[in-house]
Amino acid sequence: MAPTTTAIYARIVTERRRIMARRLPMLIASAWLFTPSHAGPGRVSSTTLGASTVQQGVAADPLQSWNDGAAKRAIIAFVERVTTQGGPDFVPVPERIATFDNDGTLWSEKPVPFQVMFAFDRVKALAPQHPEWKTKEPFASLLKGDMAGVVATGEKGVLEIMTATHTGMTTDEFSRSVQEWITTARHPKTGRLYTEMVYQPMLELLAYLRANGFKTFIVSGGGVEFMRPWAERVYGIPPEQVVGSSGKLKLETRNGRPVLIKLAEIDLVDDKEGKPVGIQSRIGRRPIAAFGNSDGDLQMLEWATAGAGARFALFVHHDDDAREFAYDRADKLQTFNVGWDEAVAKGWTVVSMRQDWKTVFPRVTK
Amino acid sequence: MAPTTTAIYARIVTERRRIMARRLPMLIASAWLFTPSHAGPGRVSSTTLGASTVQQGVAADPLQSWNDGAAKRAIIAFVERVTTQGGPDFVPVPERIATFDNDGTLWSEKPVPFQVMFAFDRVKALAPQHPEWKTKEPFASLLKGDMAGVVATGEKGVLEIMTATHTGMTTDEFSRSVQEWITTARHPKTGRLYTEMVYQPMLELLAYLRANGFKTFIVSGGGVEFMRPWAERVYGIPPEQVVGSSGKLKLETRNGRPVLIKLAEIDLVDDKEGKPVGIQSRIGRRPIAAFGNSDGDLQMLEWATAGAGARFALFVHHDDDAREFAYDRADKLQTFNVGWDEAVAKGWTVVSMRQDWKTVFPRVTK
Repeated sequence: MAPTTTAIYARIVTERRRIMARRLPMLIASAWLFTPSHAGPGRVSSTTLGASTVQQGVAADPLQSWNDGAAKRAIIAFVERVTTQGGPDFVPVPERIATFDNDGTLWSEKPVPFQVMFAFDRVKALAPQHPEWKTKEPFASLLKGDMAGVVATGEKGVLEIMTATHTGMTTDEFSRSVQEWITTARHPKTGRLYTEMVYQPMLELLAYLRANGFKTFIVSGGGVEFMRPWAERVYGIPPEQVVGSSGKLKLETRNGRPVLIKLAEIDLVDDKEGKPVGIQSRIGRRPIAAFGNSDGDLQMLEWATAGAGARFALFVHHDDDAREFAYDRADKLQTFNVGWDEAVAKGWTVVSMRQDWKTVFPRVTK
Repeated sequence: MAPTTTAIYARIVTERRRIMARRLPMLIASAWLFTPSHAGPGRVSSTTLGASTVQQGVAADPLQSWNDGAAKRAIIAFVERVTTQGGPDFVPVPERIATFDNDGTLWSEKPVPFQVMFAFDRVKALAPQHPEWKTKEPFASLLKGDMAGVVATGEKGVLEIMTATHTGMTTDEFSRSVQEWITTARHPKTGRLYTEMVYQPMLELLAYLRANGFKTFIVSGGGVEFMRPWAERVYGIPPEQVVGSSGKLKLETRNGRPVLIKLAEIDLVDDKEGKPVGIQSRIGRRPIAAFGNSDGDLQMLEWATAGAGARFALFVHHDDDAREFAYDRADKLQTFNVGWDEAVAKGWTVVSMRQDWKTVFPRVTK
């Protein structure tokens, strides 16, 4: 007997709390599965773009996609303060570390974080090698497109999907599967490649900071091995400047060559209080500027601004349902609530995507 | 009743095997404690240098402290191969990753890894705050300079010393204690600051690689938080390019500010099979060149050379007892044995410190 929507929702809430409490490695997966309003994948837009390139305009104004306003002025003022030689807030180049959240800060994260779409697509791609999945949950429901069925498998189901798609293979094999997916899979709403759903104003901000001697890092709750294969091409951020959630690795020898196997054990949950930990363990230097969009980034912004000297913290506020998505305090998974209040109280910059950004996504040419 | 030397030695061997098997976080500490020939700290040379600077000569030959020979020629040939635009082995700048072991490869590691000297000195520095240490082992023996007594406390004693000196404080507090020590403590044999016991030829090699577009990383079994405070000043390697062994961190709030506490739990043992793991988890890109000096570096060199295209692997062989220390196959702790055979079999470069280096340490001026 199918459970009622209310019963499913109650179960979702309970499961999600348990998962959050246990800090599972792939929180990101639960984000999708435990979003009750989700209608399932498959709303592929008819607007299918061909092989495309992302245009990053070069102009006199390095932040040309930003409207004049408090946010843009605050960014420029900060950069000028810390780069003015002899000024009271001057920061030497090696200390100009800037950290960026990825999902919702550099690219979209709706209807679900894109890594979850990757996991689901991988289940479909791997299904021929797993005939048993036809009758084994949560794979059976997922392969039928029955998302309620997937949700019904709970925490155990989530873990099985993430384990099947993210562990057991070598790091090279996983990287290749990400490369293949990221260059072909398309967003269900916009029909764009996922890498075409990066934010043009943020690409300009990354380039502007680097032009001013900053070293730009990603510090994301998403999987580090999922981001590295494309972050350099898309953001100009090399693998060694990508920090993310990760599982443990094990060195083995296969066919006489060393390989690293992705294990189903947590290494780092790079979210919330895990972000300062990820920053210290991987970067080892406190950022002077940090950029996020949800309460999951709050500890990173607190960590960055707790250092001495000039500091900068910025939240992207998703308030543009026409051009992207609108969600904040009430969002079940990418909540922007405590962080918003703290930003207001501390005078941090809050970017209104609707008001501050001339464009959201890069222009795509075939 | 005091145990005989033979009994102590037998115990040492057993203890060391147990520790190696368990992969304790601070293997480095056991290195010192379980070296039976160690005569205890305190052999401070009368040659005490004043406040000093390390001179790094600038000359037409970027490797001027290297004698002409197979090692120097192999280094230059490799760099020319991978930097020759249009050549068959050209490597784009972002992929020019070079990883260096630290202890024994960039600076000396005898009579014991210098981090162990730091731990012992910290016990002495912290003793006034711990009156109970006067009667509590292993601290009581250490404070009396009775190394046999420290050794007699076994694995438990080692852990207590490392825990007392490396955990429980904030990362900032620990960093300050390292800064203070590294700028004042002196090597028992040479009387030099430890940072003056770096290898001049390796400083030139680091600079030569960077001048050719390489990004240089440390990948060391030593503690990452111990190396970062001075690696940039001494080696030109910034904190974010230092990978090392580490303990877990925990975010807490103290006096209204976020701090990271160093916990007494293993995060990464960045030695042997842990080095490729450290490289993948922190750097995320396979090095094209790797440099070490002992069997603890072998897996890193294997990992680097297993990639496609031109690769370079080098071992520093400590064969210069007159100017530094001589040890290799028979060394109990920094063994260079399996790696040596593999280097010969695979045609890797083995540097004879005695023959290949014109000078070992930098010239120090008051």
